[in-house]
Amino acid sequence: MTRELRLNAFAMNCVGHQAQGLWRHPRDESANYKHPSHWIELARLLEKGKFDGLFLADVVGVYDVYGGSVDTALREAVQVPANDPLLIVPLMAQATSNLAFAVTCNLSHEAPLPFARRMSTLDHMTDGRIGWNIVTGYLDSGSKGAGQKQAAHDVRYDIAAEFMSIQYGFWEGSWDDDAVVRDRETGVFADPAKVHRISHEGEYFRVDGVHLCEPSPQRTPVLYQAGTSSTGMAFAAKHAECVFVGGPSRKKMKADVARLRELAVEAGRAPNDILVFALATVVTGPTDEAAQAKFEDYKQYVSRPGVLALMSGWSGIDFSNPDLLAAAAQKSNAIHSASTTFKNKEQADDALLDKMVHNMGLAGGGVTLVGGPERLASELEAWATECDLDGFNLAYAVMPETFEDIVDHLIPELQRRGLFKKDYQSGTYREKLFGKEPRLGESHPAASYRQPMGG
Amino acid sequence: MTRELRLNAFAMNCVGHQAQGLWRHPRDESANYKHPSHWIELARLLEKGKFDGLFLADVVGVYDVYGGSVDTALREAVQVPANDPLLIVPLMAQATSNLAFAVTCNLSHEAPLPFARRMSTLDHMTDGRIGWNIVTGYLDSGSKGAGQKQAAHDVRYDIAAEFMSIQYGFWEGSWDDDAVVRDRETGVFADPAKVHRISHEGEYFRVDGVHLCEPSPQRTPVLYQAGTSSTGMAFAAKHAECVFVGGPSRKKMKADVARLRELAVEAGRAPNDILVFALATVVTGPTDEAAQAKFEDYKQYVSRPGVLALMSGWSGIDFSNPDLLAAAAQKSNAIHSASTTFKNKEQADDALLDKMVHNMGLAGGGVTLVGGPERLASELEAWATECDLDGFNLAYAVMPETFEDIVDHLIPELQRRGLFKKDYQSGTYREKLFGKEPRLGESHPAASYRQPMGG
Repeated sequence: MTRELRLNAFAMNCVGHQAQGLWRHPRDESANYKHPSHWIELARLLEKGKFDGLFLADVVGVYDVYGGSVDTALREAVQVPANDPLLIVPLMAQATSNLAFAVTCNLSHEAPLPFARRMSTLDHMTDGRIGWNIVTGYLDSGSKGAGQKQAAHDVRYDIAAEFMSIQYGFWEGSWDDDAVVRDRETGVFADPAKVHRISHEGEYFRVDGVHLCEPSPQRTPVLYQAGTSSTGMAFAAKHAECVFVGGPSRKKMKADVARLRELAVEAGRAPNDILVFALATVVTGPTDEAAQAKFEDYKQYVSRPGVLALMSGWSGIDFSNPDLLAAAAQKSNAIHSASTTFKNKEQADDALLDKMVHNMGLAGGGVTLVGGPERLASELEAWATECDLDGFNLAYAVMPETFEDIVDHLIPELQRRGLFKKDYQSGTYREKLFGKEPRLGESHPAASYRQPMGG
Repeated sequence: MTRELRLNAFAMNCVGHQAQGLWRHPRDESANYKHPSHWIELARLLEKGKFDGLFLADVVGVYDVYGGSVDTALREAVQVPANDPLLIVPLMAQATSNLAFAVTCNLSHEAPLPFARRMSTLDHMTDGRIGWNIVTGYLDSGSKGAGQKQAAHDVRYDIAAEFMSIQYGFWEGSWDDDAVVRDRETGVFADPAKVHRISHEGEYFRVDGVHLCEPSPQRTPVLYQAGTSSTGMAFAAKHAECVFVGGPSRKKMKADVARLRELAVEAGRAPNDILVFALATVVTGPTDEAAQAKFEDYKQYVSRPGVLALMSGWSGIDFSNPDLLAAAAQKSNAIHSASTTFKNKEQADDALLDKMVHNMGLAGGGVTLVGGPERLASELEAWATECDLDGFNLAYAVMPETFEDIVDHLIPELQRRGLFKKDYQSGTYREKLFGKEPRLGESHPAASYRQPMGG
């Protein structure tokens, strides 16, 4: 196959992110996340490598399922402390020209109008290089900390659908393209006839006002989603332009991607209206041997309690509890692969936990691929072909070394094979991804929120 | 008097801000607010002039009282369009070393935990150069747009008090100073015994969790407040470190400042624990004549409907309505000086409106001072002495020309008189302002949220 792959770096405004315990590695600099220079240098490195984007994860809340407390997460720096992801984007955008930024924001904590404004502001400031990973929240601790009661899973998607409808109204329907006149002579800044109130009275939100921002380059940011439940996939099939999938099994991923594209067609969109990115951690170097040696080095730093705390938070299953299997069987909403590891087992013992930690250690719910440039390029291509993927979100083991290795070794080989671009396309993030216009196409539900021509 | 004055630039992430219609001036660049370079250049200019800070106003909502619609505000660019203020701060902080940023955020639209995290993130990223202007909202349109019903004035301050209590818990009480160990050898990132849950069950919020961020340089950002009602002043006397006052009357300002300092003492604080900044628009140049000529030039661009739309939004009184006086008399919550202009009048006619527009044209509710460096330095000193002020928030008529003129002409004269610093003090914003420690002093209510020593 010759489909060009898309590559995002996958990170979070915290220590370590996916690879639990690797912050202890002597070369890991992820604990510098608090400093602007950390992110500016990462952005420059990624742009040097022609990465399409930086995908920023986020959680509002802590991993407090393991052992029934936050202690392990704090001790091991399991995504806590964690700073706000949006505030580092302006710096990174200013230091680059083409790199895009897909940022996770949990809509449960956002008021519709201020959130629409935040995204429009970033779209203006980045010249249209912003994406939003739509999240409805999976940590109870986030809701408790934020002062809300966590809604049930399906209700969260109802809330999300209503929230999206308001966002589309503000982003697509409130200001006509030619609303801003900015005529110093006539004194007209905006033509009031071309700015429209968005009125919405729904079950969860009531809104009545105009968007506060002029039309930005993309209007709606590029929309990411990562739902793997049936409700989540239906939501993604309708709204998402990019979908983020994970898990170590090619077979399951292939089936999920096929189902997602079917659902997109059922929702009136084309199968390729959605780009699918798979999570992967790659450990590479100039040769297979060098990569393998690096991997062996990294593995020494994996934190077993850190991995278990992360997976307990993801799945809602306390892996410190010997009765966890019974709990796992009951938890139908267990996510990622934490639960699948167990679902056909009768007993969880230390050996099984060890295996899980081994599998998940660097990967954080995705696959870990180890090898020199040729082996890795072939592996990524094989995954992409078999699972019908458009690209990868590449997590790091050691920051920024993992990304340096990718830029120095893997990307040149992908480029040599015609699997990766040698330079950026011009335009906004959406234009770069789809080669089409900067704004969402007519088959996307957001299009129906636009004013009729001349309206 | 030899008290050193503090100077903030006063701006907003929008077109024109306070001086309605001045965006039409050929040299005004405020309509470039969408572009990062606009703010980066402003920050560098302000730091060159040793400005203490940039005070960023914000409104979530539109001015739709005038004529019962948003049309005039849109046509005249009366603080709409307006982008998010927080997102420009990282860029400006990165371009400077000492300039501080006091940002207006309306707590009505914020969930406690994500907001605490936003501020802590900025405090980290700016090395402690962040302040927060606490606002509870005065535009009904903001609440409607955000999907909430606007609470009554006094209730808003009850909500604010509860919100502050949660923020103090997160900022001051959740992580001990030595909680972060970051020991690669022992594998301990944070000591769980030194990270504390904040549990709050109140009338408006329920919170139970740890703060997501490590202790930042100032922990609590420098707190600004601008309430002028009796409830607002009581709130400021308790919480604020800096208070922003406005209005064209020295006599009223003097009384307000005296009352505020009395209230601070009643709240167990020292009178000088609060720094008071007055709003002023200054038009200056190398000489009185040059300044006057500039003022005459600027005045031609004042937009009468723009001024009336702004003041209608502020006061809740529709100044397009001939019966406005009756309404004004009834509105006890009318704010700023819009209402005071009328309260002893029996009739509002065009001449009176003209006078109001004339008075308010460049000043946006404050005073406009015109003159060369010597005249202006004397005037500012006289205001400060008579009203017991610590400094000024200086609004612009033309962006960035107003600030260029201040840096080139006014500041050197203030420095010559010993009224303004010649260089920055080291440290965080709080250290620069008060010459004390980076964290809030013991007399501030936030101090009671700290853990007991060793706790």
